[in-house]
Amino acid sequence: MFAVEVRDHIMIAHSFRGALFGPAQKLHGATFVIDVAFFRDRLTKDAVVVDIGRAHDALKATLAPLNYQNLDALQQFQGIETTTEFLSKYIFDALAKSAKTGALGPGGEGISRIRVTLRESHVARAWYEAPLT
Amino acid sequence: MFAVEVRDHIMIAHSFRGALFGPAQKLHGATFVIDVAFFRDRLTKDAVVVDIGRAHDALKATLAPLNYQNLDALQQFQGIETTTEFLSKYIFDALAKSAKTGALGPGGEGISRIRVTLRESHVARAWYEAPLT
Amino acid sequence: MFAVEVRDHIMIAHSFRGALFGPAQKLHGATFVIDVAFFRDRLTKDAVVVDIGRAHDALKATLAPLNYQNLDALQQFQGIETTTEFLSKYIFDALAKSAKTGALGPGGEGISRIRVTLRESHVARAWYEAPLT
Amino acid sequence: MFAVEVRDHIMIAHSFRGALFGPAQKLHGATFVIDVAFFRDRLTKDAVVVDIGRAHDALKATLAPLNYQNLDALQQFQGIETTTEFLSKYIFDALAKSAKTGALGPGGEGISRIRVTLRESHVARAWYEAPLT
Amino acid sequence: MFAVEVRDHIMIAHSFRGALFGPAQKLHGATFVIDVAFFRDRLTKDAVVVDIGRAHDALKATLAPLNYQNLDALQQFQGIETTTEFLSKYIFDALAKSAKTGALGPGGEGISRIRVTLRESHVARAWYEAPLT
Amino acid sequence: MFAVEVRDHIMIAHSFRGALFGPAQKLHGATFVIDVAFFRDRLTKDAVVVDIGRAHDALKATLAPLNYQNLDALQQFQGIETTTEFLSKYIFDALAKSAKTGALGPGGEGISRIRVTLRESHVARAWYEAPLT
Repeated sequence: MFAVEVRDHIMIAHSFRGALFGPAQKLHGATFVIDVAFFRDRLTKDAVVVDIGRAHDALKATLAPLNYQNLDALQQFQGIETTTEFLSKYIFDALAKSAKTGALGPGGEGISRIRVTLRESHVARAWYEAPLT
Repeated sequence: MFAVEVRDHIMIAHSFRGALFGPAQKLHGATFVIDVAFFRDRLTKDAVVVDIGRAHDALKATLAPLNYQNLDALQQFQGIETTTEFLSKYIFDALAKSAKTGALGPGGEGISRIRVTLRESHVARAWYEAPLT
Repeated sequence: MFAVEVRDHIMIAHSFRGALFGPAQKLHGATFVIDVAFFRDRLTKDAVVVDIGRAHDALKATLAPLNYQNLDALQQFQGIETTTEFLSKYIFDALAKSAKTGALGPGGEGISRIRVTLRESHVARAWYEAPLT
Repeated sequence: MFAVEVRDHIMIAHSFRGALFGPAQKLHGATFVIDVAFFRDRLTKDAVVVDIGRAHDALKATLAPLNYQNLDALQQFQGIETTTEFLSKYIFDALAKSAKTGALGPGGEGISRIRVTLRESHVARAWYEAPLT
Repeated sequence: MFAVEVRDHIMIAHSFRGALFGPAQKLHGATFVIDVAFFRDRLTKDAVVVDIGRAHDALKATLAPLNYQNLDALQQFQGIETTTEFLSKYIFDALAKSAKTGALGPGGEGISRIRVTLRESHVARAWYEAPLT
Repeated sequence: MFAVEVRDHIMIAHSFRGALFGPAQKLHGATFVIDVAFFRDRLTKDAVVVDIGRAHDALKATLAPLNYQNLDALQQFQGIETTTEFLSKYIFDALAKSAKTGALGPGGEGISRIRVTLRESHVARAWYEAPLT
């Protein structure tokens, strides 16, 4: 199995509900350094999984609506805990769609898995990984 | 598959037996920077794998009996080569028990896999990963 | 010149005012990974700059009132742009006081410089460094 | 599953053919920081996957013919796009052979998987992972 | 003293002349991960050294003519050893000019020092630091 | 001012005396990832501070007598607290001598400063920096 992984980041505000979250129930924020890995069983005729430049562009386009936002105020996140885990799946879903609609360029159609990792600090990160169906 | 990974470290002394280990047969030591990843198929009702704070606490509690120790002198390691690989499995076993006994808080009961990674330098690390049974 | 540097982090929300800041005028947030370096011309009788454990404790105590906060809502930051640069100086001032009041333990009294570095992402950081007077 | 991973690097020149590669069609270069993970179901009698020192040596020997080279000029790469993905598989193949021929020392014969990761910058990497057959 | 540091990278080919360089006399290449620190005695009225976004843009513009190039073929480097040290000074000179011509936006005029660091691998880097005159 | 910095590591055992050190009074150990920066006002005729390869070799030679040792048992450290700070100065002294005796190759004679940084974990490091006299 081959993989290519690219990195970008967002800076957001948010808060959580419920005793589990302790002090994180207050409005706070995070820098998420985000790594997205695209997996492919075989390389394309150009010997790539996807073009790294296009992968960076697709990731940036996916993150733009979230960057510099208070997630608590976004329509799509009402009633949702925007945990690091949740956001890794949310970004996964967006990039899975990008792969299918050609936003990743040649090779995107053959991507078999995606993993999205969000590093929230030097001591904690979360990820979601799944096959594309 | 979702995962959350937390980091801590220990500083220990130890030595090995057998020609394979060359100069590491002498008493020496290591800082192990330890990443523990908890995997879960679905998120809890709070949208987490486990609470990151509790995961950090459980890791710290697991490491406390090893930190600042000469592993050669500990009862449980008599006759054992405390290699980086061995220790990753040893810490895995302790955290697998923590998951089952509730030390990780809500979500711990649904953890399906754990991976324990020990970075021993900027150029070498080892890990053990397995499903919880 | 000797130095010891310890690391911790905070997760905060804030916003800026003024066209310079572009999209960062909106409420957003950041994880700041914070390194504090303490400088000393000579080592103490224990051969340290300061005890690393006490340095970690002093940094954690300094950061506690900021962690998981919306800086826009804190009394001490009204009318202030809480930029990465500003915060590095703010934390510097608090730790300079800690050094003088003994919170760093033996050696703290002889610290001649402090540098506070805030990493806001994998591609940007800021710091403030100055002698203690 | 146990794993041991070691790190080294090479500095090479190369170029690509085809519009997909944009400016990378010109002769340019890269530092590849290379991590090789060896996987084994059980540890050897010495409680290792493979000896970390021998793993470093085997990796260095594998990389030597590539280091400080213009890959475009090497016989074995004529007509081939030496992408990060391609090179991760190329190094995988060499180390898979090393495992079988004893170059990794005791334990090499039981390696069940290898993963070769090439980090080409702080924001992009690629890898190839497969079982040994 | 305040500082802001931003990161970008280039991927280049080059070669050296003279026995000192050993195998690096052959055409090879490097990824340089480049950190540029801008120093300022006092913050601007916006509480910044320079805007981090503009600093990133200025760095990218400075690096563009070098990225994906064979430095041996560039007019400005004929007869010059494009060592990591040399390039750190070369990029320093370009950014010193950017600071004076306003490319960094408000604050650029007050920058008192610049440091340019080029990381060529996980085990080697070089930098040039000097006051602006 | 120009600088070149190279990295290596050692794995040692040691212990401390005195209440300041708390649990570190017990025999434990550390991996020290060591960065040595060599400073020079001007580059040599080869456009380097020192050759990076020779710098790596000199660092490795300096570290060899310490690597895989119990520092408590070494003659030269009797009655000494081998703190991270102390060791950074100890390695500084050895490399300052290397610079003067030609072990760094051409350029070594003109080195004006050295900084030795020991990273003992992902959250703590120490360094010693001084001019060569």
